[in-house]
Amino acid sequence: MIKAGIIGATGYAGAELARLLLQRDDVAIVWYGSRSYVGEDFSQVYRNVAGSADVPCKDDDMAQLAQEADVIFTATPQGYCASQVTEEILSQAKVIDLSADFRIKDVGVYEQWYKISHASPQFIPEAVYGLPEINREQIKTARLVANPGCYPTCSFLTLYPLVKEGLIDTDTIIIDAKSGTSGAGRGTKLGSLYCEVNESMKAYGVASHRHTPEIEEQLSYVAGKPVLVSFTPHLVPMNRGILVTAYATLTKSLDAATVKAVYDQYYEKEYFVRVLKPGEAPETRWVEGSNFADISFKLDPRTNRIVMMGAIDNMVKGAAGQAMQNMNLMFGLAENTGLKQIPMFP
Amino acid sequence: MIKAGIIGATGYAGAELARLLLQRDDVAIVWYGSRSYVGEDFSQVYRNVAGSADVPCKDDDMAQLAQEADVIFTATPQGYCASQVTEEILSQAKVIDLSADFRIKDVGVYEQWYKISHASPQFIPEAVYGLPEINREQIKTARLVANPGCYPTCSFLTLYPLVKEGLIDTDTIIIDAKSGTSGAGRGTKLGSLYCEVNESMKAYGVASHRHTPEIEEQLSYVAGKPVLVSFTPHLVPMNRGILVTAYATLTKSLDAATVKAVYDQYYEKEYFVRVLKPGEAPETRWVEGSNFADISFKLDPRTNRIVMMGAIDNMVKGAAGQAMQNMNLMFGLAENTGLKQIPMFP
Amino acid sequence: MIKAGIIGATGYAGAELARLLLQRDDVAIVWYGSRSYVGEDFSQVYRNVAGSADVPCKDDDMAQLAQEADVIFTATPQGYCASQVTEEILSQAKVIDLSADFRIKDVGVYEQWYKISHASPQFIPEAVYGLPEINREQIKTARLVANPGCYPTCSFLTLYPLVKEGLIDTDTIIIDAKSGTSGAGRGTKLGSLYCEVNESMKAYGVASHRHTPEIEEQLSYVAGKPVLVSFTPHLVPMNRGILVTAYATLTKSLDAATVKAVYDQYYEKEYFVRVLKPGEAPETRWVEGSNFADISFKLDPRTNRIVMMGAIDNMVKGAAGQAMQNMNLMFGLAENTGLKQIPMFP
Amino acid sequence: MIKAGIIGATGYAGAELARLLLQRDDVAIVWYGSRSYVGEDFSQVYRNVAGSADVPCKDDDMAQLAQEADVIFTATPQGYCASQVTEEILSQAKVIDLSADFRIKDVGVYEQWYKISHASPQFIPEAVYGLPEINREQIKTARLVANPGCYPTCSFLTLYPLVKEGLIDTDTIIIDAKSGTSGAGRGTKLGSLYCEVNESMKAYGVASHRHTPEIEEQLSYVAGKPVLVSFTPHLVPMNRGILVTAYATLTKSLDAATVKAVYDQYYEKEYFVRVLKPGEAPETRWVEGSNFADISFKLDPRTNRIVMMGAIDNMVKGAAGQAMQNMNLMFGLAENTGLKQIPMFP
Repeated sequence: MIKAGIIGATGYAGAELARLLLQRDDVAIVWYGSRSYVGEDFSQVYRNVAGSADVPCKDDDMAQLAQEADVIFTATPQGYCASQVTEEILSQAKVIDLSADFRIKDVGVYEQWYKISHASPQFIPEAVYGLPEINREQIKTARLVANPGCYPTCSFLTLYPLVKEGLIDTDTIIIDAKSGTSGAGRGTKLGSLYCEVNESMKAYGVASHRHTPEIEEQLSYVAGKPVLVSFTPHLVPMNRGILVTAYATLTKSLDAATVKAVYDQYYEKEYFVRVLKPGEAPETRWVEGSNFADISFKLDPRTNRIVMMGAIDNMVKGAAGQAMQNMNLMFGLAENTGLKQIPMFP
Repeated sequence: MIKAGIIGATGYAGAELARLLLQRDDVAIVWYGSRSYVGEDFSQVYRNVAGSADVPCKDDDMAQLAQEADVIFTATPQGYCASQVTEEILSQAKVIDLSADFRIKDVGVYEQWYKISHASPQFIPEAVYGLPEINREQIKTARLVANPGCYPTCSFLTLYPLVKEGLIDTDTIIIDAKSGTSGAGRGTKLGSLYCEVNESMKAYGVASHRHTPEIEEQLSYVAGKPVLVSFTPHLVPMNRGILVTAYATLTKSLDAATVKAVYDQYYEKEYFVRVLKPGEAPETRWVEGSNFADISFKLDPRTNRIVMMGAIDNMVKGAAGQAMQNMNLMFGLAENTGLKQIPMFP
Repeated sequence: MIKAGIIGATGYAGAELARLLLQRDDVAIVWYGSRSYVGEDFSQVYRNVAGSADVPCKDDDMAQLAQEADVIFTATPQGYCASQVTEEILSQAKVIDLSADFRIKDVGVYEQWYKISHASPQFIPEAVYGLPEINREQIKTARLVANPGCYPTCSFLTLYPLVKEGLIDTDTIIIDAKSGTSGAGRGTKLGSLYCEVNESMKAYGVASHRHTPEIEEQLSYVAGKPVLVSFTPHLVPMNRGILVTAYATLTKSLDAATVKAVYDQYYEKEYFVRVLKPGEAPETRWVEGSNFADISFKLDPRTNRIVMMGAIDNMVKGAAGQAMQNMNLMFGLAENTGLKQIPMFP
Repeated sequence: MIKAGIIGATGYAGAELARLLLQRDDVAIVWYGSRSYVGEDFSQVYRNVAGSADVPCKDDDMAQLAQEADVIFTATPQGYCASQVTEEILSQAKVIDLSADFRIKDVGVYEQWYKISHASPQFIPEAVYGLPEINREQIKTARLVANPGCYPTCSFLTLYPLVKEGLIDTDTIIIDAKSGTSGAGRGTKLGSLYCEVNESMKAYGVASHRHTPEIEEQLSYVAGKPVLVSFTPHLVPMNRGILVTAYATLTKSLDAATVKAVYDQYYEKEYFVRVLKPGEAPETRWVEGSNFADISFKLDPRTNRIVMMGAIDNMVKGAAGQAMQNMNLMFGLAENTGLKQIPMFP
């Protein structure tokens, strides 16, 4: 039995993680951390888990939790994990950080985009970027995993094979991403109110969203050279789902069969990546509630560009599901343990 | 391994059933029946199951299917199951009918409300109304189960204990029900278009909806006398969920603790019925994607009435989940096998 | 040119009123009052009016405003208008209060349901309940109009003719109402977040909602005797719209033609009330953005009950539109001036 | 009094046009054309106009209509207007075609993208592309106006000033567009069902959407050379609204003030184009129900690109409103007659 603790359990990502873990027989949640709801039953904060998690939330105490848990998930605001994690904690429990604190290797870049100073840069080098499809082996032995952002997960998986194979000009990459509203979190902000979001859409964080350097760093590793992208996220009136539409100029003439073969080569053994049939475009409804990423593309010979498309559930593959996928790897379990949910439709 | 066949697999209820069955290790789906998509891969019709159900749909052939399957689910329009079922089929496979064909014992009532003549009234007596919370034992040995309607399931569970205990005047029962749009099915009707449903709500089938006699029959058994109700369904712009708000006059003065105790007495051992704490009202989001029914009530001393409230996911407890719950009972399995999903939120 | 001031202009109702007034050539808004946005341009708070209302919001100052305006609208929390209004103000400007402060004649009932003490009960007697369909003549000469609540407007118009004619037993009235989310206001509450509201529905304020005594008082006047009702509001995932489904037992046998004739008798001269054809049920989409109330009914001979249904846009006929309708009457204008908008669909 | 006829009045665009025209005192609709609803009252097909348009729909007969009307709107499928229009009709009535039949000057391009042969290419030269912001003077004297598509309207207005001024490299233009579902029309297609659209998003018509050549043709005129663009439309779960996010590489270094000044130079006298303040991004909710186009941009010095953004209501500025704007010009009226509606929020 794996003993798991969640700090930040009452945010949307933390609660989704709790839901996924509660459905397993081989994991016990020993700590529902929440600053806002200390002492209140978790199942009163999220009544979906009534009957499964009728235990009180506890305050943050990562050091104490490390003594009680085998694995700690931090689904917390930027800066928290970096400010709490210690060598002692890492020697006692595995840590999977759902925040951005350990995603970016260059602390200067982190501090520039996140506008905070990093409290424990000494752990950045050992932290493994938790995208199993590229870092599977390192994750297995990691003490500290930086769980990827929702947009970076979807963007990277969509672009990865073609960048790796040098088939697209990395100077021309444009990523237009759209997200459901759960990505904005459970904070009571005006812009997250039902009547403000419903029946509307907008771009936000244009040319300045903090997931940009994360995407760029990972693509740069793959490309073997620095990559800059234009990344524009949009808010769409729905709960879950991220759709990425990415554009790039081809480096040489390609037909659809060739491109499909490249995607298949990279993903056919990946349980969670489904490369669609030619002509199909991803739709978020077909991945909702699951850890799948659906990927497809369309060539545009008129402009010599390719349009690459990917869809994930931002709460699952974009956050809690991927965190559990990482946990599985770190504990030597089958990677899809507890993650075989088929997407729910409608 | 239970071999299951679904006739009507490409409707919403059939597809939800397929999704639930596919997530099990002890069930194999041997037949995806669909008049509209014969020969087309089921996973092309419902891309959420891509990778899990890449097999072609077959035409209807209940007799053939009975030879290949241990259990047949008919998620078909009214009249189909009654027109196909035979003694031979029932001797070969268990049948769980998600249509209304065998829900109503009085064939005259059936024919009056459904405007069709019943093709096999000889099987009505043996058919068991598949609401496990009241007919658990009979279901275990049934050959033919009539899976309840979505509104009747939610309405009945909401009212049952108080009717049984004689605490409400059954002449005063009013059931105001609201449903998400998946209940309308996947037929391409004008009234089901996104722009017709979104940002609107309406009552429909007022004083004439065909679930009325089904509710009345079950409540009459419980009351031990004929019960007539006012039942009004409404269409609400959301995918899943039924909310029932039921009103009745109390037969005697009651306090909340007493009523709560009655509900608890009936439901505390029921895995799928969650009686809420006093003061809480059911919300469909807390049951979405699960087989739970959340039940609550509020006394109104000013009018000597009680307001009873229930919420289910119409696709799960209101259709496919309950069908699988019945299957579990019929095969001697734990009733919640494959049905422990925690509701998905958001 | 009528000079109008709005206190509470940056709430949803106040902003809707601003929008409606801005579309008129015969009204000038001289004061956008807002505690939260003092000094900020109104068109920055509500960018829909960009180009039409690029003027800064002012703080509350009803006394000052009375010197500058011909009419003051208070779209403010309960208690504000009562705490500010004075004889001097009423002698200088007409006041239309969109809060509940002057809707209820019995100050004890007000204080019991609203849990605040009334700061100026001396003005209650002269305040006119601003439902033009019943109080048209008194409104014309009123200094102080209490603009009705959204639920009471829809409930009352739905029930009024049949109560007035004694055709329904007023001891049996049950009002099940459903509202879009704009009725919850623009406050940043957890329960108003997009992901909390979307894909869900719930009852709230069961047997305790503060619109109950308002409905009862108005129906009591019509019935000529005290009327108590069961009133249950529900929250539905849509922006605008209220749907009322009301139930009552008939006092005598009636056919549809007779009931239709009664409704027509009361409403055929009313510009804003549309009695639907027999068999039609109101849908909120057909009134959205307009000041119309669509009304219909269905007899249920099996139970000797009638189901009465009404739909309005809660922001227009349920708030700002009706306020402007009252303003028109108070200034001797055609009642539908500026209110002839045809509902917007889709 | 302008006598107007609408062929295709019962589609969403036709009905929106009817709604806008019905709100005017100087226009009378003399013909509601509809193949599907001949003989049925228009107000039964669209109950929002109940009381305003209780007249039966007529079959298509453009020749007859030309004798009865001053202006004919064809809100019809591609090919209809081209197949019906004649010299005689054009000599009798002005024609505003909301379909694509006369938008594209090169009939070969039209036939290639629309897969139909053009029935009256002889009228293509005289047809004026009805985007008043660029073709105002020609529209005033036109007999035949080709009302622009929804995506082209929004895309063009977003890009126009910068293309015209040569500030962006037209070889790098990528247009990622998102639309509400009303753009898909009222046809009863599976993909337009509520449960298929709700809680999902997808790209469609990738690299093949028929609005592409229309956008390219108009931009080519402005650029003075052929322009090819990557254009990807997306379907979003909302009723109304188009959001365009366009990307291009700058031809020289620019600061925000300079770009803002360029936009202002082109649009400050345009009633319907609102250039947002620096830092603001368009949101469809702020234009819903209105004829406004909200435009903004963001420079991205890291990539030397600019992100240009525009939002319109696809039913108004993207279809019916622009058609009425054209009508106003053709009849010598103020361009915004009947089009001063302030966007409705929420």
